[in-house]
Amino acid sequence: MKYPMGIKNNIKKTIHYGNRGMSLEEDINITNNYYREEDIAVIYKKPTPITITKVDYPSRKEAIIKEAFFKTPSTTDYNGIYRGKYIDFEAKETQKDRFPLSNIHSHQITHLKQIIKHGGIGFFIIRFSKRNETYLLKGNTLFEFMEQTNQKSIPISYFKEHGYLIIEKLKPRIDYLSIVDDIYFEGGPYEQNTKR
Amino acid sequence: MKYPMGIKNNIKKTIHYGNRGMSLEEDINITNNYYREEDIAVIYKKPTPITITKVDYPSRKEAIIKEAFFKTPSTTDYNGIYRGKYIDFEAKETQKDRFPLSNIHSHQITHLKQIIKHGGIGFFIIRFSKRNETYLLKGNTLFEFMEQTNQKSIPISYFKEHGYLIIEKLKPRIDYLSIVDDIYFEGGPYEQNTKR
Repeated sequence: MKYPMGIKNNIKKTIHYGNRGMSLEEDINITNNYYREEDIAVIYKKPTPITITKVDYPSRKEAIIKEAFFKTPSTTDYNGIYRGKYIDFEAKETQKDRFPLSNIHSHQITHLKQIIKHGGIGFFIIRFSKRNETYLLKGNTLFEFMEQTNQKSIPISYFKEHGYLIIEKLKPRIDYLSIVDDIYFEGGPYEQNTKR
Repeated sequence: MKYPMGIKNNIKKTIHYGNRGMSLEEDINITNNYYREEDIAVIYKKPTPITITKVDYPSRKEAIIKEAFFKTPSTTDYNGIYRGKYIDFEAKETQKDRFPLSNIHSHQITHLKQIIKHGGIGFFIIRFSKRNETYLLKGNTLFEFMEQTNQKSIPISYFKEHGYLIIEKLKPRIDYLSIVDDIYFEGGPYEQNTKR
């Protein structure tokens, strides 16, 4: 049976439990909004990098882009500040039980290595969509896997052993900073944020 | 006399001394590339935020954006990490001898205030194009001006008194981090970067 786009999407949301129909990107954006509203952290998704080749100006204030192309990103998608520290990460989801390393561009690997070298906090957030499991994996842990194996994908077992499962909550949805507290700050949550 | 584009540009470059024909954005991008190549800092310009409304897929790998609109930016244009600290700034140029505050969106003011509150380094780089003078102004110094006066623009005299003139060099072109060293780190340049 064929449905118009909108209806089909609604049905999808009813079948899936809770927020399972939401993309990882949406979940992280909602979480980052919460962090900003609660004055916990200032972290944003960067805009998608594009090359604009044609622009129309129907009026002085309005501009319509008529042709543009997606560019390969040179950095990760998310960055910002938390507890005075520079934070940088990439988020990806996969339908499989292994995470394909081809999902991450080599520029992004180089970028995260530089960030960590300069004293920033760099990691990955990977969701296995079918299982609805989302893991935080330290940048260095992923780089070690790449250096020590020749595998083109990381099995979920590696995430279970070396990563940190992010428990989904209502608010904030994907509380990845509580894990950052544990693994990068070696202490409980930031004093001002005890409500988390 | 009419010249083909390329020739005209060359002539322009000959008349103007050094890099005076380059935009502030180009100068900062070149400078940031230098900082990254020399492993001094990892600072990027964020892509222009747009809303994409139409995309064509002539083939599986290729996508052409056929309609998109510019969005008002919610953050500043540049951020990254330097000496372990989160760095965030906005860069603007003006033809006048006063800098119009309308050039900065209220979101960007809010954003920079949040960054500074969370322990980041936040500032503005403003170029007065006619004079070819580029200043770094601390975020808080600009906010004080806004709070203490009702003026809609900042006179260049305020920059001369409260800002820091960035001397243009060959490499890096706009060495704003040497000023960051002086005013935020209260010491000479970072030991590893003595070549600057």
